[in-house]
Amino acid sequence: MGYKKIKKTEKAIPISVIKRLPIYHRYLNKLIDRDVEHISSKQLAEKLGVTASQIRQDLSHFGTFGQRGYGYRVNDLAKAIGEILGVNNKLHMVLVGAGNLGGAIINYPNFSKRGFIITAIFDNDPAKVGTKIAGCIVLSIDSLREYLESHAIDIGILAIPAEDTYEIVKIFEECNIKGLWNFAPVSLNLENVLVENVHISESLMTLAYQIKEMDE
Amino acid sequence: MGYKKIKKTEKAIPISVIKRLPIYHRYLNKLIDRDVEHISSKQLAEKLGVTASQIRQDLSHFGTFGQRGYGYRVNDLAKAIGEILGVNNKLHMVLVGAGNLGGAIINYPNFSKRGFIITAIFDNDPAKVGTKIAGCIVLSIDSLREYLESHAIDIGILAIPAEDTYEIVKIFEECNIKGLWNFAPVSLNLENVLVENVHISESLMTLAYQIKEMDE
Repeated sequence: MGYKKIKKTEKAIPISVIKRLPIYHRYLNKLIDRDVEHISSKQLAEKLGVTASQIRQDLSHFGTFGQRGYGYRVNDLAKAIGEILGVNNKLHMVLVGAGNLGGAIINYPNFSKRGFIITAIFDNDPAKVGTKIAGCIVLSIDSLREYLESHAIDIGILAIPAEDTYEIVKIFEECNIKGLWNFAPVSLNLENVLVENVHISESLMTLAYQIKEMDE
Repeated sequence: MGYKKIKKTEKAIPISVIKRLPIYHRYLNKLIDRDVEHISSKQLAEKLGVTASQIRQDLSHFGTFGQRGYGYRVNDLAKAIGEILGVNNKLHMVLVGAGNLGGAIINYPNFSKRGFIITAIFDNDPAKVGTKIAGCIVLSIDSLREYLESHAIDIGILAIPAEDTYEIVKIFEECNIKGLWNFAPVSLNLENVLVENVHISESLMTLAYQIKEMDE
């Protein structure tokens, strides 16, 4: 019963808070590396560029990690956030697209430390098939379906041009992938697959808009 | 007076709406390429995976482009959104970091078509200095300050490791850059510079969290 109650509380965390947790998690792990044991919401706020009250509100969603006058217990807090983010569970991923973007993704620091394992890369360029990127072999895109059918893969990473997206997404859908991490410049919205779209050019356009507003 | 009034309306557009405009803009330009003249909010909604009422609400922020029974006039709507996003103004950018991620950014499709021009790349690796990426020369990071002082640059792109960020950001701040587009795995929050942080690992962790929730 007690367990169930905790579960229910977890489910209630708004997605806007969840999106900030990795930022807290990363910074708390830095503090652990530096043997810092306590940190106040004020110090956290200053470091992360948010308000102390937002931090207190965000962290209140999953228990009490603070002591009056001492601040938060860094270790316990990092562990609890890691638990919520599921970084203690390993997630297996395949990457489609061995171009610059794919290379950048696979070389992104601390993926494996955070529980994410890329098991294979796929590309449609015969010149790339058989080569290795960051120790991981590039396979032909023609073998993607067979690979997904014979391996337990949780997440597909799309680092491909927009025009190739439909065909590749169809394979992932038919193989019941749980999630797609989409860097292709199209917005995916699928019925049975969780999708996280990384809107690279949208982000730049938002910045451009703000600069334009500032200039006027 | 009329002009001022329009300006004021523009300023009032919420940033959440602005973030969706590039998605509309991209899709409308595709329709223009296919000579589509009108589109209904329902059709737009189906294509973009949002509700028709959200589209009507979003687009209502900047004028009337719809005709009952005909839908939106694609050309006028694309032009108006482009105007708001400032894609008709050219923005000059420099890229710091000539690694995989930098290469992916500079090769990202349609940057120049959207009014973004990368004028130089900077790196601290002597082996990279003097080489070209996508036709753009790589300069030594030591010359960044001088370059910024002698060129009109609007945006700095950071595709560098976290540990190099502080030093590089300081140069940009001192040279009064307008905006930073930050891919480094740190959250920047600066007083006098607009920052758009691209949270790559945060995006993956959000997906991991949702997969974990689904599995339970």
